[in-house]
Amino acid sequence: MIKTGDRPLRPGDTIGILGGGQLGRMIALAAAPLGLKTHIFCPDPASPAFDVAHTHTIAGYDDISALDIFAASVDVVTYEFENVPGPTASHLAARVPVRPGPRALAVSQDRLEEKTFLQAAGIPVAGFWRVDSDEAAVAALEEAGGKGILKTRRLGYDGKGQILLRSAAEARDAFTRLGRQAAIMEAFVPFEREVSVIAARGVDGTLRAYDVAENVHRDHILKTSTVPAALEPELAAQARQMAETICERLDYVGVIGVEMFVLPEGAGGPRLVVNEIAPRVHNSGHWTQDACQVSQFEQHVRAVAGWPLGSAERHSDVVMENLIGDEADRWEAILAEAGASLHLYGKTESRKGRKMGHVNRIRPLRA
Amino acid sequence: MIKTGDRPLRPGDTIGILGGGQLGRMIALAAAPLGLKTHIFCPDPASPAFDVAHTHTIAGYDDISALDIFAASVDVVTYEFENVPGPTASHLAARVPVRPGPRALAVSQDRLEEKTFLQAAGIPVAGFWRVDSDEAAVAALEEAGGKGILKTRRLGYDGKGQILLRSAAEARDAFTRLGRQAAIMEAFVPFEREVSVIAARGVDGTLRAYDVAENVHRDHILKTSTVPAALEPELAAQARQMAETICERLDYVGVIGVEMFVLPEGAGGPRLVVNEIAPRVHNSGHWTQDACQVSQFEQHVRAVAGWPLGSAERHSDVVMENLIGDEADRWEAILAEAGASLHLYGKTESRKGRKMGHVNRIRPLRA
Repeated sequence: MIKTGDRPLRPGDTIGILGGGQLGRMIALAAAPLGLKTHIFCPDPASPAFDVAHTHTIAGYDDISALDIFAASVDVVTYEFENVPGPTASHLAARVPVRPGPRALAVSQDRLEEKTFLQAAGIPVAGFWRVDSDEAAVAALEEAGGKGILKTRRLGYDGKGQILLRSAAEARDAFTRLGRQAAIMEAFVPFEREVSVIAARGVDGTLRAYDVAENVHRDHILKTSTVPAALEPELAAQARQMAETICERLDYVGVIGVEMFVLPEGAGGPRLVVNEIAPRVHNSGHWTQDACQVSQFEQHVRAVAGWPLGSAERHSDVVMENLIGDEADRWEAILAEAGASLHLYGKTESRKGRKMGHVNRIRPLRA
Repeated sequence: MIKTGDRPLRPGDTIGILGGGQLGRMIALAAAPLGLKTHIFCPDPASPAFDVAHTHTIAGYDDISALDIFAASVDVVTYEFENVPGPTASHLAARVPVRPGPRALAVSQDRLEEKTFLQAAGIPVAGFWRVDSDEAAVAALEEAGGKGILKTRRLGYDGKGQILLRSAAEARDAFTRLGRQAAIMEAFVPFEREVSVIAARGVDGTLRAYDVAENVHRDHILKTSTVPAALEPELAAQARQMAETICERLDYVGVIGVEMFVLPEGAGGPRLVVNEIAPRVHNSGHWTQDACQVSQFEQHVRAVAGWPLGSAERHSDVVMENLIGDEADRWEAILAEAGASLHLYGKTESRKGRKMGHVNRIRPLRA
């Protein structure tokens, strides 16, 4: 059955979700109170999202017949990770609306495409150079002023697939060390802090940006997001504006995460540069679950369902802390803490560096 | 396998829930973020709670072998309705902790037991008389001052199984009209308004009462709950105290709903009388989902898991409105409303008088 389906969903309809991790799980948990069912498609039989979804399919993303059955059983498809294979996305998109759309996926899957798109949209980014050889890496590092990060253009996350380079000597065989995959050199940005904006765009073009979060990473993994961020009001407004511009330029539908660096005052350049966009709900937006009436997960469901977006206003100040590896063993102490909301992902196996849950600690809004 | 299991649950453990309606569904949705699985046991194949639970069993409450398998697969049992058959509860309780315990069930399943318990606990109630014949009904009505409500002692909800009586003539065959079931006559209480308190008690005896809600019924079905209730502070404190006393006297574990009448000032008697208790999460506590950090559903999960209770504090004022029958068709307008949170139950068939969902409308706390 081919669905044309640009109609808004109705209660009782089903959202198909590619990926069965914690993000898919939290989307499913947000869809249920809106009367929507979810169908999770994931190759991993131990997917935490299966526990809370109406239906699940265990199959590879290249399993065409499984994808066909999936497409016929859902009213819209979304995803919890940006590395959905292109052929999977286009196969599905021919059968059912896929939101966010193919352009957002294409741009965010390739760091060179992403930076090129951002630059063309007038969004400040760090200097970047295409790298396809060891020689190109050396040349790019020189242009970058002697300090840069060589990254594979595709895949790679939480610091994987990248090398910090501080000298021509280090650059000499860096491309080879990265496995001779298509790469990008990014100028090193001496940032003061990292922030992010979670924004959403509806099918009708409505934009809603949440307040800016200030993020702290540990071992390349997000550790905390604090809202409000310690940021001048003009910069905060600029950050939200940039996220909205990105949504518009991508003709985006859904929630997006936009990571930015804040540069020191007085350096002459822009104060904010965009580091990365993620076409999905984002770890640095988990604080919205307990500090806003409408969480990023509900907002994403509303957007992909073709429904009106909700308010992105915040009723509390908040710090989100990721529980990584055995940190989730602290669940009992967290439950006893006033103002703390525990969110565990139902993962059976705790591994070093694995995100097992998070906690949102709220307090009244500062006047 | 017989479980002794008075240990607190651990993330990954399973809560068994008897009943698959919206209350079971919302308990399951609250259990998931705490890392707990749920197993719903319900005879109805179209149970809305199945959509969001890890496991479900479709079987009758008297199906001993299904109950045995259920008991062996869960770490604690709770329920979403007070009319769990006694034999079902005791069969399960011999195998796995059942929370709230058998005393709460016994008391709340029989209006005469309930009123007798409340009176013994020093809680004001309307006058009541046991009725086992037409003659007894006439005599009781006279003692009640000529205006009373004859109710079956067991079952009956939303106004079913009760008759308002205003004269001896009406009383004459009332017991027969009720089907000659064991009954109770309750004196008619000229109440000003109806309020309720949602309270919780943990395994460790901790008590937490939420703020008093003011309830409006329509056609004997709850229509709105407003918090805060328009109630003098001393009366509100008294109401919460009464709910806590009831929990203690029942050695209760879990969330309880206590419905009360507010009587006019100057009549000489008590200003608050308890009408009914429900040993479960309660429709008049749905407002906690959007006006508190810890909803009644999370609180119930914490309690039955043997975990520390959360705060019962409120961060917003709120009005909860039930969506009954085709009122749920207004979902689209509600989604577009600022400050409104929609909760649909995923029921496929809308019938007159059927609770299909609710909406919580929040606004900032009045100073």
